[in-house]
Amino acid sequence: MAEPSLVFPATEYRARVARLQAEMTKAGQDALLLTSPADVFYVTGFLTRFWESPARPWFVVVPVSGAPVAVIPAIGAELMGRCWINNLRTWDAPDPVDDGVSLLVDTVCALVPPRGRVGVPMGLETSVRMPMADYARLVERLRPRAMVDATDVVQRVREVKSAAEVEKIKAVCAVAGRAFADVPKFARAGVPLAEVFRAFQRALLAEGADWVSYVAGASGPGGYSDVISPAGSVPLASGDVLMLDTGAVRDGYFCDFDRNFAVGVVSDAVHRIHDALWEVTEDVLHALKPGLLARDVHQMFLRGLGARGVEAGGGRLGHGLGIALTEWPSFTPRDTTVLRAGMVLTLEPGAVVGAGRMLVHEENILLHDTGATLLSPRAPRKMPVLGP
Amino acid sequence: MAEPSLVFPATEYRARVARLQAEMTKAGQDALLLTSPADVFYVTGFLTRFWESPARPWFVVVPVSGAPVAVIPAIGAELMGRCWINNLRTWDAPDPVDDGVSLLVDTVCALVPPRGRVGVPMGLETSVRMPMADYARLVERLRPRAMVDATDVVQRVREVKSAAEVEKIKAVCAVAGRAFADVPKFARAGVPLAEVFRAFQRALLAEGADWVSYVAGASGPGGYSDVISPAGSVPLASGDVLMLDTGAVRDGYFCDFDRNFAVGVVSDAVHRIHDALWEVTEDVLHALKPGLLARDVHQMFLRGLGARGVEAGGGRLGHGLGIALTEWPSFTPRDTTVLRAGMVLTLEPGAVVGAGRMLVHEENILLHDTGATLLSPRAPRKMPVLGP
Repeated sequence: MAEPSLVFPATEYRARVARLQAEMTKAGQDALLLTSPADVFYVTGFLTRFWESPARPWFVVVPVSGAPVAVIPAIGAELMGRCWINNLRTWDAPDPVDDGVSLLVDTVCALVPPRGRVGVPMGLETSVRMPMADYARLVERLRPRAMVDATDVVQRVREVKSAAEVEKIKAVCAVAGRAFADVPKFARAGVPLAEVFRAFQRALLAEGADWVSYVAGASGPGGYSDVISPAGSVPLASGDVLMLDTGAVRDGYFCDFDRNFAVGVVSDAVHRIHDALWEVTEDVLHALKPGLLARDVHQMFLRGLGARGVEAGGGRLGHGLGIALTEWPSFTPRDTTVLRAGMVLTLEPGAVVGAGRMLVHEENILLHDTGATLLSPRAPRKMPVLGP
Repeated sequence: MAEPSLVFPATEYRARVARLQAEMTKAGQDALLLTSPADVFYVTGFLTRFWESPARPWFVVVPVSGAPVAVIPAIGAELMGRCWINNLRTWDAPDPVDDGVSLLVDTVCALVPPRGRVGVPMGLETSVRMPMADYARLVERLRPRAMVDATDVVQRVREVKSAAEVEKIKAVCAVAGRAFADVPKFARAGVPLAEVFRAFQRALLAEGADWVSYVAGASGPGGYSDVISPAGSVPLASGDVLMLDTGAVRDGYFCDFDRNFAVGVVSDAVHRIHDALWEVTEDVLHALKPGLLARDVHQMFLRGLGARGVEAGGGRLGHGLGIALTEWPSFTPRDTTVLRAGMVLTLEPGAVVGAGRMLVHEENILLHDTGATLLSPRAPRKMPVLGP
């Protein structure tokens, strides 16, 4: 008989919990305490935009054996009740006197022996989404239980995507691909960047995004100075390069890739830099394999750009992707995460075009045992030109 | 000479910092350490959707006298450089070896004497957006400086909106008002709820939202069971009540209100409950004044609904609003926050319609010295009916 669940069949979530529990066993942890939107969604399938409200903390406790327990504000009971999780405890949040701490303490104490260890993700790219004063109370009241770092436990599991997850990411990449194909319909010289951003978000929704959690972009003569700004009111001008980058969401899964467009006539030098970014992405795509370290990929990009006489620009040159816009690892000089089959990653080389100007190029890929394949529809070989 | 700044003139931010510093002085705090998107935006004007990426922490340190310092990932330098903040320190994040901690320690130590106190918001509705292990390192390395709770310092300042802020909230309320007026164009019996959600988000963008951070809603026969779920594929049916709720964003400011629609013929009893919610909102709007406590407003709603023979439903019955979808205080039984002139609030009564079914109604208001006025265009007196 089918269990109720959201997004995926309950078997998907049961398999995730089993993998988490295997890592917890290896790490000697008796339970995991999860508080982030992505971690809660990963274990339960609880999908809501209500995370946008910072008012309330949400907790999921995964014991090293047995079923997870959700300890959540009462306003989420109905939705969590439609997930596969059967163990649900609620309180009326926000409560200035006790905002779920006692309920959480009770829950953890029933699952973890006094000398046990409670894993909490505490490392790079994590944060604990609850008031710091309540976290301190929790630590105190759970003693002699120890809180230990569960970053590795969670990351080694989440970073390897199931086939069902890959299909979700591929689907939202296709949505964004269709929206990017629409850009020439609404972006041209004279249109303010803010209007381009609005039209692009409308296109993403029309093409099937459930919502659009991220759009950034920029335009400037022959390149842009920044990739995370919101749009201003300056109109596109001939000679600009327009970049649009999106993290659209469907069924809780993100894409994260960008596209560049030449507004009218852009110099050959800029087109050549775009070509170099396209080519180095192609080279890295074909060279990727499990066992490489994240920093090796950073090196591959630097070497490939250097061989083409292009200076690398931008920040990290790619990262993980899935139920958050960005996940670990990062293609940076010091990230030693081992690449594994099943990882979904972005390849994101950037190049310096001139003083304070750059181009960035991004694709989403899946790493298999034998190499990598694209999830995003490949960018055109030549930077598309937006007509007048 | 005008200083560079985003969203508002630099004078707005200078006034905010002066108010924060006055509260810090009263509380005996030597500096504030801010990490949340809203707090960073409030002090600096740094507006970006890049917060969607959990990869990197961002820090702003506000000393009790003198200028704030931003300690942020290098990828944000260009955008922060266009804000009024002149003191900017960056590192290449994410860095697995030292993700900004040493830079932050240096910065705080230069501003706070060894026996000084560093305020961090640690209370209800806050969280510290940085890895817990790095926060522990920070506490250790800042000793003998003490970390103390700065929730009151920040909340007493942010909760009183400037005239410029009120104008921004009013503007985005107007955007949502126009989008709600468009709902009859795309919502009717037979249309799947997911399509209604997409069309509503497209309408919000077309009417001038920069982006749509929150849409929730529900539909069901004579009421709905939940207000935070994403949309399913079930088509609207005659007899349903459709509720749409949005937190649209313009210039970094949110609206947060909902509207109900009758899909074809809905029972008179349901219409009467909608009338009761409308009337009790009107009564509370006229009774609000500074000096009341948040819990008093909760009582006013309960009494008003009770007098009309309606059982209150839903969670809290209203809350603060501004640069986050929801801010403190909460209209709940135990919230003793004092209401003050300049607060922007939601009035959000809910009613039980039947077993597992409810209606919720929401408006956005501004509290003045003499009473409250609406910021959202008032909901129609009678629940609008969507035609066939």
